[in-house]
Amino acid sequence: MTARKKRRIKLPKVKPSKNRNEVPGQVTYTGKKEAAVTKLEIIDYSKDHYKRLDSENIEDAFAFESSEHVTWINVNGLNNTKEIERLGDYYNLHPLIQEDIVTTNQRPKMDEYEDYLFIVFKMLHYTDDGDFINEHVSMVVGHNYVTTFQEADGDVFDGLRDRIENSKGRVRQKGADYLMFAILDAIVDNYFSVIETLSAKIEFIEDQLFQDKVEEDITHDIQTLKKEILRIRRAVVPLREIINRIEKIDTALIENRTKNYIRDLYDNIIQVSESVDIYREMIWGLMDMYMTTISNKMNEVMKVLTIMASIFIPLTFMAGIYGMNFEHMPELHLRYGYYYLWAAMILVFFGLLWYFKRKKWL
Amino acid sequence: MTARKKRRIKLPKVKPSKNRNEVPGQVTYTGKKEAAVTKLEIIDYSKDHYKRLDSENIEDAFAFESSEHVTWINVNGLNNTKEIERLGDYYNLHPLIQEDIVTTNQRPKMDEYEDYLFIVFKMLHYTDDGDFINEHVSMVVGHNYVTTFQEADGDVFDGLRDRIENSKGRVRQKGADYLMFAILDAIVDNYFSVIETLSAKIEFIEDQLFQDKVEEDITHDIQTLKKEILRIRRAVVPLREIINRIEKIDTALIENRTKNYIRDLYDNIIQVSESVDIYREMIWGLMDMYMTTISNKMNEVMKVLTIMASIFIPLTFMAGIYGMNFEHMPELHLRYGYYYLWAAMILVFFGLLWYFKRKKWL
Amino acid sequence: MTARKKRRIKLPKVKPSKNRNEVPGQVTYTGKKEAAVTKLEIIDYSKDHYKRLDSENIEDAFAFESSEHVTWINVNGLNNTKEIERLGDYYNLHPLIQEDIVTTNQRPKMDEYEDYLFIVFKMLHYTDDGDFINEHVSMVVGHNYVTTFQEADGDVFDGLRDRIENSKGRVRQKGADYLMFAILDAIVDNYFSVIETLSAKIEFIEDQLFQDKVEEDITHDIQTLKKEILRIRRAVVPLREIINRIEKIDTALIENRTKNYIRDLYDNIIQVSESVDIYREMIWGLMDMYMTTISNKMNEVMKVLTIMASIFIPLTFMAGIYGMNFEHMPELHLRYGYYYLWAAMILVFFGLLWYFKRKKWL
Amino acid sequence: MTARKKRRIKLPKVKPSKNRNEVPGQVTYTGKKEAAVTKLEIIDYSKDHYKRLDSENIEDAFAFESSEHVTWINVNGLNNTKEIERLGDYYNLHPLIQEDIVTTNQRPKMDEYEDYLFIVFKMLHYTDDGDFINEHVSMVVGHNYVTTFQEADGDVFDGLRDRIENSKGRVRQKGADYLMFAILDAIVDNYFSVIETLSAKIEFIEDQLFQDKVEEDITHDIQTLKKEILRIRRAVVPLREIINRIEKIDTALIENRTKNYIRDLYDNIIQVSESVDIYREMIWGLMDMYMTTISNKMNEVMKVLTIMASIFIPLTFMAGIYGMNFEHMPELHLRYGYYYLWAAMILVFFGLLWYFKRKKWL
Amino acid sequence: MTARKKRRIKLPKVKPSKNRNEVPGQVTYTGKKEAAVTKLEIIDYSKDHYKRLDSENIEDAFAFESSEHVTWINVNGLNNTKEIERLGDYYNLHPLIQEDIVTTNQRPKMDEYEDYLFIVFKMLHYTDDGDFINEHVSMVVGHNYVTTFQEADGDVFDGLRDRIENSKGRVRQKGADYLMFAILDAIVDNYFSVIETLSAKIEFIEDQLFQDKVEEDITHDIQTLKKEILRIRRAVVPLREIINRIEKIDTALIENRTKNYIRDLYDNIIQVSESVDIYREMIWGLMDMYMTTISNKMNEVMKVLTIMASIFIPLTFMAGIYGMNFEHMPELHLRYGYYYLWAAMILVFFGLLWYFKRKKWL
Repeated sequence: MTARKKRRIKLPKVKPSKNRNEVPGQVTYTGKKEAAVTKLEIIDYSKDHYKRLDSENIEDAFAFESSEHVTWINVNGLNNTKEIERLGDYYNLHPLIQEDIVTTNQRPKMDEYEDYLFIVFKMLHYTDDGDFINEHVSMVVGHNYVTTFQEADGDVFDGLRDRIENSKGRVRQKGADYLMFAILDAIVDNYFSVIETLSAKIEFIEDQLFQDKVEEDITHDIQTLKKEILRIRRAVVPLREIINRIEKIDTALIENRTKNYIRDLYDNIIQVSESVDIYREMIWGLMDMYMTTISNKMNEVMKVLTIMASIFIPLTFMAGIYGMNFEHMPELHLRYGYYYLWAAMILVFFGLLWYFKRKKWL
Repeated sequence: MTARKKRRIKLPKVKPSKNRNEVPGQVTYTGKKEAAVTKLEIIDYSKDHYKRLDSENIEDAFAFESSEHVTWINVNGLNNTKEIERLGDYYNLHPLIQEDIVTTNQRPKMDEYEDYLFIVFKMLHYTDDGDFINEHVSMVVGHNYVTTFQEADGDVFDGLRDRIENSKGRVRQKGADYLMFAILDAIVDNYFSVIETLSAKIEFIEDQLFQDKVEEDITHDIQTLKKEILRIRRAVVPLREIINRIEKIDTALIENRTKNYIRDLYDNIIQVSESVDIYREMIWGLMDMYMTTISNKMNEVMKVLTIMASIFIPLTFMAGIYGMNFEHMPELHLRYGYYYLWAAMILVFFGLLWYFKRKKWL
Repeated sequence: MTARKKRRIKLPKVKPSKNRNEVPGQVTYTGKKEAAVTKLEIIDYSKDHYKRLDSENIEDAFAFESSEHVTWINVNGLNNTKEIERLGDYYNLHPLIQEDIVTTNQRPKMDEYEDYLFIVFKMLHYTDDGDFINEHVSMVVGHNYVTTFQEADGDVFDGLRDRIENSKGRVRQKGADYLMFAILDAIVDNYFSVIETLSAKIEFIEDQLFQDKVEEDITHDIQTLKKEILRIRRAVVPLREIINRIEKIDTALIENRTKNYIRDLYDNIIQVSESVDIYREMIWGLMDMYMTTISNKMNEVMKVLTIMASIFIPLTFMAGIYGMNFEHMPELHLRYGYYYLWAAMILVFFGLLWYFKRKKWL
Repeated sequence: MTARKKRRIKLPKVKPSKNRNEVPGQVTYTGKKEAAVTKLEIIDYSKDHYKRLDSENIEDAFAFESSEHVTWINVNGLNNTKEIERLGDYYNLHPLIQEDIVTTNQRPKMDEYEDYLFIVFKMLHYTDDGDFINEHVSMVVGHNYVTTFQEADGDVFDGLRDRIENSKGRVRQKGADYLMFAILDAIVDNYFSVIETLSAKIEFIEDQLFQDKVEEDITHDIQTLKKEILRIRRAVVPLREIINRIEKIDTALIENRTKNYIRDLYDNIIQVSESVDIYREMIWGLMDMYMTTISNKMNEVMKVLTIMASIFIPLTFMAGIYGMNFEHMPELHLRYGYYYLWAAMILVFFGLLWYFKRKKWL
Repeated sequence: MTARKKRRIKLPKVKPSKNRNEVPGQVTYTGKKEAAVTKLEIIDYSKDHYKRLDSENIEDAFAFESSEHVTWINVNGLNNTKEIERLGDYYNLHPLIQEDIVTTNQRPKMDEYEDYLFIVFKMLHYTDDGDFINEHVSMVVGHNYVTTFQEADGDVFDGLRDRIENSKGRVRQKGADYLMFAILDAIVDNYFSVIETLSAKIEFIEDQLFQDKVEEDITHDIQTLKKEILRIRRAVVPLREIINRIEKIDTALIENRTKNYIRDLYDNIIQVSESVDIYREMIWGLMDMYMTTISNKMNEVMKVLTIMASIFIPLTFMAGIYGMNFEHMPELHLRYGYYYLWAAMILVFFGLLWYFKRKKWL
């Protein structure tokens, strides 16, 4: 029993991460990306109007409030929680929402309030180093504004910005609800491309396995893939529910003609989530494939050993016989005894070779 | 830690596929089959009337619009998106539908509009090379017309065309809703035959495994089967939902007497989807069977090695004894010492043979 | 890549089975059992009346139509589709029903029509050769008649026939709905006995595995069991749904007092389907057990090899030493050198034996 | 093909068990426990009254019918079906209920009738030999009586009998519905203790595996555990549904104040069924653990072989060199050649030892 | 058969644990933590008022009953069931609730009564020794009081106590329903940190496996992790249902403005339960990883053996040839025969080395 106790894994003490055990509703940033300043990017547009303002001063956002146009306020950098709180208080956001905006491990969700929708989702991407990044994004959708909060610079909305600026597509002719749709659409497209990368990784490992090129333990890579697909799933599945709910909610914030687009978006995210399930199964299958590869290799090793040993052990025995020092061993005195033995050994050698050939080990 | 980093798979950069990151509602062809021209095949029929027109000119379709007959317009080739857009605009199709028609990786779905139903599904087949092909088909069902859009020439509707032309079966006596049913019925029959091919592959591999004919790693084949069954499932499951919904929707487009046929079709697609689940389990089972086969083979290899080594190593030892050069070894001087030893060795040889026989290793 | 292409399984061309790609509603027999003639067995009974007529003439059935008694018309042999069509037209059966009667791979289902219920189910049995047979049975239940259609002679209804003839049980006092119940009850009892046979097979294999009597690859047997349980499941699960629906439908065809029996039948089929799930798990477990058996055997083989090699290789080395021809090897000249060496070798021999004994390998 | 046919398992003919293929509603005992006589145990009580009567005469039960007290009639022994039928007819029980009472493999279920509830459940226990016993119990709950039917003597209700007799707890102050609750409560407690035994078995096997004490194939034990947990599950899951339904049904038979107790009971059986699921997973995990143990052992065996062979094969080769009989081998004539060789061999010996040490194989 | 009987595991007799087979509603403590005395900790607060009283006298709690403030009575120690009963009777708690308070293996649940809610949940933590502890906590929530019952001293509510005392956060401005929320919130945060510890353990084992540092059988550790995750799941899943129900129930006990907080809490516990599912999958994956590691090691062992044997067995054979004593062996008399042989042997040696190198075994 003591022996077993000793075996128990000695863990280094785990100290609780900073985002827990705090006061509910308190606005504490829990992410890792510490932006020097909180940057604001304000895009104000209507059919005939376009204005863009980049600022680091939170007050600049307030000027656009009464605008007749659609205003998209994008906030990059969540670690200056004071600023977030000021913005939140100005827009009259519930304290729990302010908390959710900066709680980066918050699960995707949607809360409906009288004057706005609050949506949390995740933006995924692979860095150039192949690391998988999961960025927390929140969005407040009001009557004529959309506010998005991101952890840091860099996102998947450049195509959308371009369409707004250059009046491409329908976005300039439509309201804040269409902008919300366009943002979510960019996110879902982002998921498609992340899954494509993952799929390429899976195929790469499969090819390695099929071509017997795997020299080292790839369990680690498979385990990493497992974790990535689980994290993607964790981002996709709740967003699917959210989009489904957006399609169905009865709110003045979303016009009926936008519902068609939402429905289409819902079809897309279902497709994403089906892909996630399929790739998940594929990844789990990789482990089995790897096990088979290992077993096949061991089989090959064993065959080499068996062939070498089975051929040379009997031959060595034959040589051993005539190495004995008995006084009376008539074969030793035969004129061609040595050659006869060689003949016998060659016979045995080829006989065994033929045997292994027939067994298809060679 | 650095050692582990190095092991991480270096992927070639994956560039996003062309069908994403675009403007929602924009009509961009995403498939691979680039048809030189968009071909139209127009079949106009009623109980007493049959006319067929093949054309490459989209305007030819418009002439049939006000026809009292049922008109089936089949469009082959989706890469000339301009033509698709013209046809779509003429029929007043929603921009998102036009997008779905050319988005070849769109999941099967049905959208109900006031004047028509829009249905997306997949046509599956194996090429002669054994490749699995998944063709995107869209269908618009109106009051007296059905329009189908396919990626390229070649489909599973020849039997149906023949029945219309030769007035076989009921199709000529019925309306556009029955034509829709007949098209979906041909698709479901197509699924049955694809599954039959898959089932034949599975049985083939099983037979190979049972007869120990598998010489090389068949993991790749099993993995390919897994992917195929998953792709079939992806085509079948949403279509099942669609057919279920068609059976239940309340629309003037579908007559009540056609509902019986739809219900029958629903029974069939349920049967398809059950088969898919069963074959899926079978395919997953193949991997286990293969592992067992490998282990059995290794067992056989090990037995040969063990038998050879266990018999000849002791004999070699015995020969080694009398190869020693001690001055005082009385056995060496016995008159029949050599023969006695042979007798002993033969005894050991057969004793071990008997032992392995009893263990059923021989 | 070309190497991998070559490995792809070359399948013999699969030609589509005859029952697909046909006109919907067309009556084409798809089974294998080609009965020479279509046999009719007509049982007409009431509390005080019993008449049985065996015939090969389909018209004989029509004479019973207006009978006040309950009439059970059992049709054996479905390949003379003309006869089936005549009977079907006489009873005014929908073309799709006529198709389902002869489509032997039709999934179990129930269709409610105004004047009758149409039920499709499967009769299962093992032949004496151990083959698993799945016979397609259809049943039309009208106000005072039940018509059953079977592929061939031989069924599980003999007990029921006997009870009708000899007025045992309640069947003679009740109507066509009770007859329907009695037929389904016989089918469910049939499922119980098929599962019993399957369970006996599973236990047999388990016993073989436990007693280490398995000499050859039993993967094939396990795979066969898997297929059988999946086919049983495919018959049972839809019938469970059908019986559940029969219990709940509101139709004049089924009297209320019969509902109690249907409910009891439903309990039974639930029990069947639970058993199916349990045996399924058991069968999947057999594969694991077999793998363990293989591994245990390999362990045993390895132990024999290791013991033999580990004992005799060092001894051979010792003998090899004194087989050397160095001029100056003092041991060779010792008076009892040879005996000393034997002593040492015996010591090594028993030492190693003791070591393996302690390791519990012997 | 013929070779494969031969391999098919030849089963001894399975003859159908006696409880099937009979007339529905016919009362035939299907269990194994053949009690010599059917014993009645009648407990009649109210707040101030207690009477107990043990009898073998079924008529004795009828005397208590009109009693104002609560009457618990416990019947032990079901093989005298005549007696059961008489009792059943007296209480006006539906023929199907009478059948269910003696059909020992009937699944747990509840039927609601106007005047009584009929509940079937299972009593589980391990015999002293470790065999798992599954006893069929039926219960009829009327306005002021509860009748229970058991296969044989011996049950889990002694605590309850004692409480009634000695007026402990609430049971004497309450009606037949509370008695029903108390009986079910005893059954659920019985499930808890069966699961505890099972859990002890699992832990025992785990400990054996961890301490490497497993000398023989424990697959059989694990398979037995699997079967036991599946049988427990089969008893627990339907009873859970039954208790849930009892909580919800609207019947005069069950007073509202008893519902609180039923709800509590429902919490308990949910806990039982969760435990069942957890232990099931644990048992399935045992097989994996066992496989790992086997593989670890084989690893150890292989290491011993590899070490012995790798050390002594090179040494034997070295000795073999100097056992050759070439005329010109200068080393043989060196004064200390023999000792030099020993030095070299010792060097090789320790070098390889060090190598295996470094590899952590020693 | 007898041989198999013998193999059956002989279990030590399991005696039923003390908490079962008792009278329903009887208050018997079933836990292990026997506190010397039952300690009361009473915190009475409102916006402007704060009073804390620690006592071991149960009557002290009654003084606060009519208080206008919110009163939190925390009871540590459940083994003095008399005290619990007195408190329960005073508050008019149903006997079944009193039983649940001291039944430490009671599953988490919520019962709604007219004047209070009764909630059972689990507090989890790892001891410093790494043991996993599961503490039973009950909570009664009334109009202006919350009573909590814990098995022993030490809990996760210190942060909350601090906030109440120092008037941090909102708790002092709100009622008993907010206190209930704050307690549940602390519990859910507790689950987050337990899962974090578990996740650290999983990563630790993974790292050990990847770095091939695993020297001994870690099955035990994995099995322990499995049990822990299952126990966490058992605490989390029912609490999730409870919180969902709290969000939805219509009771005067919970104010509408508190519902927002409950909804947020519900999001958090969903996140916990998703993590549980993910880590569960991870833990199950560890076993596969371990199996792969073992197989890889065996491969390495086999390679060493194969290389050593394959190289030296042929060489030994060559030496054996020239150790024979034939009279006529011309090579023996060659001037450089010995050197030629060495050359041949070196050739063979490097040839085989090259072969194994090419096979990438070296």
